[in-house]
Amino acid sequence: MTVVSVKQALAGTPGEGSEVTVRGWVRTRRDSKAGLSFVHISDGSCFAPIQAVVPADLPNYENEVQRLTSGASVIVTGTLVTSQGKGQGFEIQAAKVEVPGFVDDPETYPIQPKQHSMEFLREVAHLRPRTNLFGAVTRMRHTVMMAIHRFLTEQGFYWINTPIITTSDAEGAGDMFRLSTLDLANLPRDDKGAIDFRKDFFGREAFLTVSGQLNVEAYCLAMSKVYTFGPTFRAENSNTARHLAEFWMVEPEIAFADLNDNADLAEAFLKSIFRTVLDERQDDMAFFAERVHPEAITRLQAFVDAPFERIQYTDAIEILKKSGKKFEFPVAWGVDLQTEHERYLVEEHVGRPVVVMNYPEEIKAFYMRLNDDGKTVAAMDVLAPGIGEIIGGAQREERLDRLDARMQQFGLDPETYGWYRDLRRYGTVPHAGFGLGFERLLCYICGIANIRDAIPYPRVAGSAEF
Amino acid sequence: MTVVSVKQALAGTPGEGSEVTVRGWVRTRRDSKAGLSFVHISDGSCFAPIQAVVPADLPNYENEVQRLTSGASVIVTGTLVTSQGKGQGFEIQAAKVEVPGFVDDPETYPIQPKQHSMEFLREVAHLRPRTNLFGAVTRMRHTVMMAIHRFLTEQGFYWINTPIITTSDAEGAGDMFRLSTLDLANLPRDDKGAIDFRKDFFGREAFLTVSGQLNVEAYCLAMSKVYTFGPTFRAENSNTARHLAEFWMVEPEIAFADLNDNADLAEAFLKSIFRTVLDERQDDMAFFAERVHPEAITRLQAFVDAPFERIQYTDAIEILKKSGKKFEFPVAWGVDLQTEHERYLVEEHVGRPVVVMNYPEEIKAFYMRLNDDGKTVAAMDVLAPGIGEIIGGAQREERLDRLDARMQQFGLDPETYGWYRDLRRYGTVPHAGFGLGFERLLCYICGIANIRDAIPYPRVAGSAEF
Repeated sequence: MTVVSVKQALAGTPGEGSEVTVRGWVRTRRDSKAGLSFVHISDGSCFAPIQAVVPADLPNYENEVQRLTSGASVIVTGTLVTSQGKGQGFEIQAAKVEVPGFVDDPETYPIQPKQHSMEFLREVAHLRPRTNLFGAVTRMRHTVMMAIHRFLTEQGFYWINTPIITTSDAEGAGDMFRLSTLDLANLPRDDKGAIDFRKDFFGREAFLTVSGQLNVEAYCLAMSKVYTFGPTFRAENSNTARHLAEFWMVEPEIAFADLNDNADLAEAFLKSIFRTVLDERQDDMAFFAERVHPEAITRLQAFVDAPFERIQYTDAIEILKKSGKKFEFPVAWGVDLQTEHERYLVEEHVGRPVVVMNYPEEIKAFYMRLNDDGKTVAAMDVLAPGIGEIIGGAQREERLDRLDARMQQFGLDPETYGWYRDLRRYGTVPHAGFGLGFERLLCYICGIANIRDAIPYPRVAGSAEF
Repeated sequence: MTVVSVKQALAGTPGEGSEVTVRGWVRTRRDSKAGLSFVHISDGSCFAPIQAVVPADLPNYENEVQRLTSGASVIVTGTLVTSQGKGQGFEIQAAKVEVPGFVDDPETYPIQPKQHSMEFLREVAHLRPRTNLFGAVTRMRHTVMMAIHRFLTEQGFYWINTPIITTSDAEGAGDMFRLSTLDLANLPRDDKGAIDFRKDFFGREAFLTVSGQLNVEAYCLAMSKVYTFGPTFRAENSNTARHLAEFWMVEPEIAFADLNDNADLAEAFLKSIFRTVLDERQDDMAFFAERVHPEAITRLQAFVDAPFERIQYTDAIEILKKSGKKFEFPVAWGVDLQTEHERYLVEEHVGRPVVVMNYPEEIKAFYMRLNDDGKTVAAMDVLAPGIGEIIGGAQREERLDRLDARMQQFGLDPETYGWYRDLRRYGTVPHAGFGLGFERLLCYICGIANIRDAIPYPRVAGSAEF
């Protein structure tokens, strides 16, 4: 007797006629008039369940097998045989069925073998991985994360776990969550009556990070190729389908690199991930294409096949002006591109992914490198059909005098950024990087619309949040 | 001209006599009387620097090459040739040397080519990856993290990113950081004068997670094999060499599994990681063995070679009692094992890693499975020579009636854990898992004593924390 996963059993491992044990949860049970039951069992290892054919002469057939409902756990031992049914490679002729756990009150069990609304499933987040959809999303999340790690590792990058807790508010990329161990009901005060954060855990104010980029630059200027990949936090209104308070972000950073190198990396990175997904998760992609988004596969394939177009921001503005389109947000040099502009560029003008480069300095962050024109910085956004901006990045300002001027322009205190300035004093080099919100990417791959369905535990008002 | 990493160049890639460009930072420069300079260059890709031999007839030899100091950035183009020096495979006969960044005021540059105290380096955390030691620790951190992901992926596990922000205080594993966006200077009050957390970001109190285990169990009971791997937080006094407020933890969880399966997994997991480290990071391990801990390599090798011993807690107590040792903490059935006890068991009694199993129920968490004796729970600790406890785990209580009794015993509110109880109502199965603090493991592998040196940015009083 060999314990195998459903995936292995479906592939005929360890061989036709073998005695195997499969363990998992019942999807469906159907009893035939011929005195047999067909039990479909999933264990999460792949999309398809395996069929166990259970003869009525098993001693627990009436007492247990015929009581099996969707969600019950089973351990089935039997012979692996070629399936007569279409679409399944192998099935199990059961000789023994054990039931570690039935479903209490099957009538009210939330995960019935039917289609549920996404809203409902967010309310039972602890059970939704048992559905076809969230099983597939869970496998895909893993596959995409590993594809990211593998691509970067093969390219010689090191994963740097930059701090989650920070005492500076970094780039001001968004509102931050404050962290404290002070007793809120009884806050310590200094002699001026202000809250005395010297008494707090870290001896000063502390927050959750909004980006590891500034930190990872220090590692970039020692290890050449590095990345952050971890949870990131924004205390912004998260009650939209596109924003999360807690999300994962990957931020590669490369030394001796300019904006073109950065765009090259972004293109190779995205294509590598999509290729892996198309290769390794064909079962789940087929489901997404059939049930969630008809173009789920074809648009990834098109993405992989097409070279990205690169357009200067200044040229993009001209294209938009000449488009003859009536945009809600008027187009003029100096404005940031809105989703409607991005979608026009990508979907109507170019028809494949676009990297827009060199934005006006006023609308971009202080650490982006000032171009020789004095008006633009070496920033880039990667825009993709059907999603819009998917990556934002920049070459960093590696020249201390320019950085200081930009910090002054943004009203930033040079002392707070002493360590960041040091990186420009000691062996500075041109360097660049980008950030990609992981859950947005996962939504795109799976074809799902609400970003709450791309995380293991959605956190929405009224949910059974845990 | 091909750009190659130092690692590639040292290995002779793309071939002797090739024109290559290497980019990195100067470790040392030595000028010979014969009118040559020897410049050693690191780029983080491996432990050893590569030597560039720079002839005096380069146009910028006097102006730039002779001004190079440790930490300056260089781009060297030249011919890859077999090195005459011992220990180096290849070196570069430089035809061109560019200097993107000198070191401002080399006299005061913190990272001089000499040994620095660990305390000092924690104060210049943004520059310490430029040292031999922290370059090696950074590479090792990456290698170990990837070894963890690879082992688990190959075994069919899925990475589940359980929430960092939580509104329950979970298992009470430690003091928690509170998270808030309320204005502390002006806290909203309800009509009883208490702080009105309904006005806070999530509409109730929120904290940073201390463990993803309870959450990941829900995924385990759908996907069979899962793990968490991410930052975890404890608001405990972190001013010791062994504790961090923010650390990474890996927590595998397996379904249809008991405590022995769990111990099997822990053993295979640790051995696989150590094997990877010994295979893939020979250069850094040689440095750790030479400079940091003489047994760095030999103890990992011994760990990989030896089968773990399994000892019942009750037997461990008897062994300790009969040891004839005078312990600071007295030994009696019912006490938790202290480090001195663990070290005696591992280092003196057994001489290799030990799994202690089935601890008294009073000293273990509510979710651990009660054994038939009614006195012990199916908990385990993996103890290793030279470090003590490295893994803690348990079979989980999968029977709802026993879980409810344990929760009552611990004074926990069943309603708060409704979702966790659901997992026992709907297709419950025996399941088990363990947790491993990543930085403690990394300290053990690298032979470093202070856990602050196992994270990219140490956060200690007085440091330039960022």
